[in-house]
Amino acid sequence: MPRFKLISKEGRARRGCFQTAHGQIQTPVFMNVATQAAIKGAVSCVDLADLKCQIALSNTYHLHVRPGDHLIRELGGLHKFMRWDKPILTDSGGFQIFSLAKLRKIREEGVSFNSHVDGRLLFMGPEESMKIQANLGSDIAMAFDECVKIPSPRKYVQDSADRTYRWLIRCKTAWEQSIQEENAVNPGQLLFGINQGAVFHDIRIDHMKRISELDLPGYAIGGLAVGETHQEMYDTIEAVEEWMPEDRPRYLMGVGTPGNIIESVARGVDFFDCVMPARNGRHGHLFTMSGILNIKNEKYASDDTPIDPSCTCPVCQHFSRAYLRHLFKSQEMLGLRLAVSHNLYFYNSLMDKIRENLEQGSFNEFRQSYSKVLDTRI
Amino acid sequence: MPRFKLISKEGRARRGCFQTAHGQIQTPVFMNVATQAAIKGAVSCVDLADLKCQIALSNTYHLHVRPGDHLIRELGGLHKFMRWDKPILTDSGGFQIFSLAKLRKIREEGVSFNSHVDGRLLFMGPEESMKIQANLGSDIAMAFDECVKIPSPRKYVQDSADRTYRWLIRCKTAWEQSIQEENAVNPGQLLFGINQGAVFHDIRIDHMKRISELDLPGYAIGGLAVGETHQEMYDTIEAVEEWMPEDRPRYLMGVGTPGNIIESVARGVDFFDCVMPARNGRHGHLFTMSGILNIKNEKYASDDTPIDPSCTCPVCQHFSRAYLRHLFKSQEMLGLRLAVSHNLYFYNSLMDKIRENLEQGSFNEFRQSYSKVLDTRI
Repeated sequence: MPRFKLISKEGRARRGCFQTAHGQIQTPVFMNVATQAAIKGAVSCVDLADLKCQIALSNTYHLHVRPGDHLIRELGGLHKFMRWDKPILTDSGGFQIFSLAKLRKIREEGVSFNSHVDGRLLFMGPEESMKIQANLGSDIAMAFDECVKIPSPRKYVQDSADRTYRWLIRCKTAWEQSIQEENAVNPGQLLFGINQGAVFHDIRIDHMKRISELDLPGYAIGGLAVGETHQEMYDTIEAVEEWMPEDRPRYLMGVGTPGNIIESVARGVDFFDCVMPARNGRHGHLFTMSGILNIKNEKYASDDTPIDPSCTCPVCQHFSRAYLRHLFKSQEMLGLRLAVSHNLYFYNSLMDKIRENLEQGSFNEFRQSYSKVLDTRI
Repeated sequence: MPRFKLISKEGRARRGCFQTAHGQIQTPVFMNVATQAAIKGAVSCVDLADLKCQIALSNTYHLHVRPGDHLIRELGGLHKFMRWDKPILTDSGGFQIFSLAKLRKIREEGVSFNSHVDGRLLFMGPEESMKIQANLGSDIAMAFDECVKIPSPRKYVQDSADRTYRWLIRCKTAWEQSIQEENAVNPGQLLFGINQGAVFHDIRIDHMKRISELDLPGYAIGGLAVGETHQEMYDTIEAVEEWMPEDRPRYLMGVGTPGNIIESVARGVDFFDCVMPARNGRHGHLFTMSGILNIKNEKYASDDTPIDPSCTCPVCQHFSRAYLRHLFKSQEMLGLRLAVSHNLYFYNSLMDKIRENLEQGSFNEFRQSYSKVLDTRI
């Protein structure tokens, strides 16, 4: 049986499922971000199961710096460490090195940088990234890449994409070796390649053609949602999607709003991740099927209805807007937790709805009804 | 059937149960503090049930200032607001006025003070405190009293105890009226009187004799754990306990460490509350049956055992010391939540153990084995 199975299509949108060493993922899917092996807002992996989460995402860079991937390996891997027995994807560390770390220096071998925690000098290249991800034992490892700023000069983007391609070949070799090691934490770990090229469609397409030849278990579109307009992002997805292998899942990294997700599903994307549900939740911005509400607003002071009356999440089953608002106004940590929990459930439920509509052939209708509404502030 | 039923005794220690409008409480009991209608550390009232909590305690002063007791009344009372259908005790607001608020002025009518949130001038006397607690709809309301500092001059303590007695008479009148009102949030609300008198045994005893004549549903010892030594506290409890009605529960306010609780149970106390499990938890100090450990300690970095191998709490069922330590070192909010959850469960389980030992006549043995051990830093 193929690892990725396409169940149905509507236009370019795809309904599928993907097999990992820790179970099957129904796609399109939203991955819940547990950066440092913990979800921001005091949400635990034990809670994630109640929030309809199918797959958690953790950050290689963060976990390498603290507590250290060797420690996590020694403790049996990331699944055991953070108590999550469903699939985990780890990013490569590249994005954080280029956004968080200081004094980085890029060479062919990899990148030298200073830890954002204690300043110590570190080095990461394709082999190091794959080694760390092997120690973490994630189900999906991401290739080590450079995520270039938008806008960047064409020459820089081309050279970077070429280097990222050469790095991918080294990643593949390292990955193939690591999963065959006798003491591999997760011998079923898979590798996804990452397409780069900023918003230069020809660079993206050329890069995509080359990496698809490597026959990897999945492919990501990286380097978007980093400063370009939504339209530029959509255009870039459309340009490159044609060249992505039909029989492999496609992952749009770091995207996005509910509307962004619907629009990208319509353009053939299967996997998403974003810090938005947790980050917006911590600011009291709560997603509903009618748009985004700010729970700190005075009008919710005596509102005893749930955040979203149509929502079936554990928060909406128990607590009122008035109580949530009180928690935020009183700076009670519980407010953050409830808000983040609701938002994660909203995102995971949104993917449920997208999948259901794809199954019933009504996705385009769903898209027209909700793509704009969900991103509106109410 | 009497509201408070003594099941058994061992020395002065008592095993009992107490009936409230929201169910029965098995005593000795530890009340879990939800100051602002929320437990510190992102723990919700829905979680409290899993933490063996029998009764929550909320603060009248805090809830009056924010979000306002009228709002909570309008929303159906505190049980509905914070989603807790078991018993709630509210303090009178007195302690917070004397410890938190600014520019307070005490007169016979009550106390003028400035809100610690926005500085606005507020007034609270016995009638106001009872009215607010009626609006909150707690099961047990506490009388409005002055909690004097230790040490304070004898003359001041005597005058204050006399005034607190006169305030108690007014509280009783206000309470009797409020529970008979047609729209009472909780017509089954009970009033506990509070004994004061600092560490002057004769003032305490005289005050206790007078307030016991008022025939209230329960009595508290207030004004301890505010600067005196543990021995002075124990001596004061012993002096006043003889004069407390045998057939009413006794509540030692704001106490304390596990050892303090065991020692006070041995001296005839039934109810306890303290911020310690939550506050210590937030600092990474975790209670175990072998003593208090500091989870930030280096020695736990690769320790994959639970906080307390003998503990059956949801945290110890899932997470390791190494993971907890990582969460604290990474400043992940989840660390605080797990630590507070464990500590609350520890306190509630400690009360289970105390009750079991009282039932089996082995409390004195339990006291000798654990009274010192539990307060030791390991």
